[in-house]
Amino acid sequence: MRRPTIVDIAKAAGVSKGAVSYALNGRPGVSDATRRRILDIAEQLGWAPSSAARALSDGRAGAIGMVVDRPAKILSAEPFFMRLIGGIQAELAGGATSLMLQSADDKGLEMATYQRWNAERRVDGVLLVDLRRDDPRLPVVRDLRLPAVVIGGPDHTEGTPCVWTDDAAAMSEVVEYLAGLGHRRIARVAGPAEFVHTETRSRAFAGTAKEVGLASAEVVHTDYLSDQAEVVTRELLTGANPPSALVFDNDLMAVAALGVAQELGVPVPERLSIVAWDDSVICGAIRPALTAVGRDVTQHGRLAVSLLLETIAGGPARSVRTQRSRLVPRASTGPAAS
Amino acid sequence: MRRPTIVDIAKAAGVSKGAVSYALNGRPGVSDATRRRILDIAEQLGWAPSSAARALSDGRAGAIGMVVDRPAKILSAEPFFMRLIGGIQAELAGGATSLMLQSADDKGLEMATYQRWNAERRVDGVLLVDLRRDDPRLPVVRDLRLPAVVIGGPDHTEGTPCVWTDDAAAMSEVVEYLAGLGHRRIARVAGPAEFVHTETRSRAFAGTAKEVGLASAEVVHTDYLSDQAEVVTRELLTGANPPSALVFDNDLMAVAALGVAQELGVPVPERLSIVAWDDSVICGAIRPALTAVGRDVTQHGRLAVSLLLETIAGGPARSVRTQRSRLVPRASTGPAAS
Repeated sequence: MRRPTIVDIAKAAGVSKGAVSYALNGRPGVSDATRRRILDIAEQLGWAPSSAARALSDGRAGAIGMVVDRPAKILSAEPFFMRLIGGIQAELAGGATSLMLQSADDKGLEMATYQRWNAERRVDGVLLVDLRRDDPRLPVVRDLRLPAVVIGGPDHTEGTPCVWTDDAAAMSEVVEYLAGLGHRRIARVAGPAEFVHTETRSRAFAGTAKEVGLASAEVVHTDYLSDQAEVVTRELLTGANPPSALVFDNDLMAVAALGVAQELGVPVPERLSIVAWDDSVICGAIRPALTAVGRDVTQHGRLAVSLLLETIAGGPARSVRTQRSRLVPRASTGPAAS
Repeated sequence: MRRPTIVDIAKAAGVSKGAVSYALNGRPGVSDATRRRILDIAEQLGWAPSSAARALSDGRAGAIGMVVDRPAKILSAEPFFMRLIGGIQAELAGGATSLMLQSADDKGLEMATYQRWNAERRVDGVLLVDLRRDDPRLPVVRDLRLPAVVIGGPDHTEGTPCVWTDDAAAMSEVVEYLAGLGHRRIARVAGPAEFVHTETRSRAFAGTAKEVGLASAEVVHTDYLSDQAEVVTRELLTGANPPSALVFDNDLMAVAALGVAQELGVPVPERLSIVAWDDSVICGAIRPALTAVGRDVTQHGRLAVSLLLETIAGGPARSVRTQRSRLVPRASTGPAAS
């Protein structure tokens, strides 16, 4: 019923698995008589080298890989990854390349995955997300000569091709927009500090806050989930000198903050302005609709794939900056209360 | 730099690709002298058959596949798939099996993908989602003898193992709950009619509506997206004899309906009750918080994977019913206005 394996052939021929492998691969290590007998048995059993050996004949695995190290809970709560995957799939649709997806709890496991994928020729290249400073993945894929494209950057990519958005410019626009509405105390509720994209936004936030002369520009780091966002928002709004505007690193946390503000009797936008990052369907559908920074994440995914396929095909290592994120003002932001 | 392929060997040896393939696979079709020369060149070029041939030696591809035929836009807007993928990944984490993901625009392409995956031994089995009546995928995977698990069912699975939830019981609970609150006109804003899970819910909706003697129990089909949900909600609420309660097939449409109700000046839940399906973080975070039917989608994904791995390992074809969905009452439902 099932497809015969080398183990089946070895059993039927009464030889070792290694001997079968040598024989089938036409390598020395078995006598000509044994080789002939093994090949006969393989043929009798209907062993089809050409099907599984396809990857061998053209050297292509026909798949690209992506390892995601965020826990399932965050993956599922945030639309970002699904939009990215949607874009990756859209670019691959109709072609003969699939996406190999693996989640890994820690960096060690993630490295082992690249090594295994490469050794077993399961993927032709990889997409790297959530870049960190001195990211240990970069030397690993470089040593493996595994084509890679970073989704993020362009800082700290160490020469690896990347697809990036100018997050710093977008953050400066947000701070200037809020300052223009009269806000003097703005807090940023950010993702984990170790990500390069978090750092890039925080640097731009602090820099522009200084330029426009804000009285306060605090940054609080979270795990991107609504529970932490609720705690942080509550602390910020009930503290001494609360901020009059909050900027969140994802839409989920901004939605959670709207709920907290309502519970505390802080009207949005009359006494609190809220800005979400990575505009989503939810940002537009919720009331008050959330002012948000939007970028075409789907297009981002498409570009990353086309760049990776180009790299796999031996093209030059080039990086692409995608269209700048745009600030979409909606009902959750307004003039600071005087 | 890159790994040598059969084409490289053929070029260096001045023979055809076919000859190289015969030589490397130890098959007749080339003279012994040519075979020896080809093997020498392959060795010089550092060609490593054993790495890519891993799948040959143990017969395992080390991957399971899932084809998703929903457009990227829906994939990214709805948390369901990402939670499912999160569960699949959680179950695979740490193991040597990866998830191969492919999106296909149409059923023909989806079939071709299963055939290609099987022929090239890229996957050891597949997960099938969004089951339809007389689903053409079932005979295809059966003919290919490709292990498969349906996420859904148990009707119309034609004996394929499945992981399913009792959607009918959950829908009956929703209708009884709303009828208990005095609602007599309830509309259901559903997903596409061709899905078995849509049909199952609609049948239970109509059946229980009849049992409890509702005055009206309309079903409207949509594409799951917020745009259609807004149009449908507006039409329902502005028509003659509008329903006093709406039940949606996903959270995104329910969120969109909240916005429409607000724009029309229809207070929720005072004049309109809203129930969402597949409770999500957003349902709990939005205000008014959405009453929703929740199930553990992540656990669903985990179970589907463990069932598939069991099937791949030659275990008996068995189906598992997961824990029943629970109705989580929140602020978006209340007594019908008298």
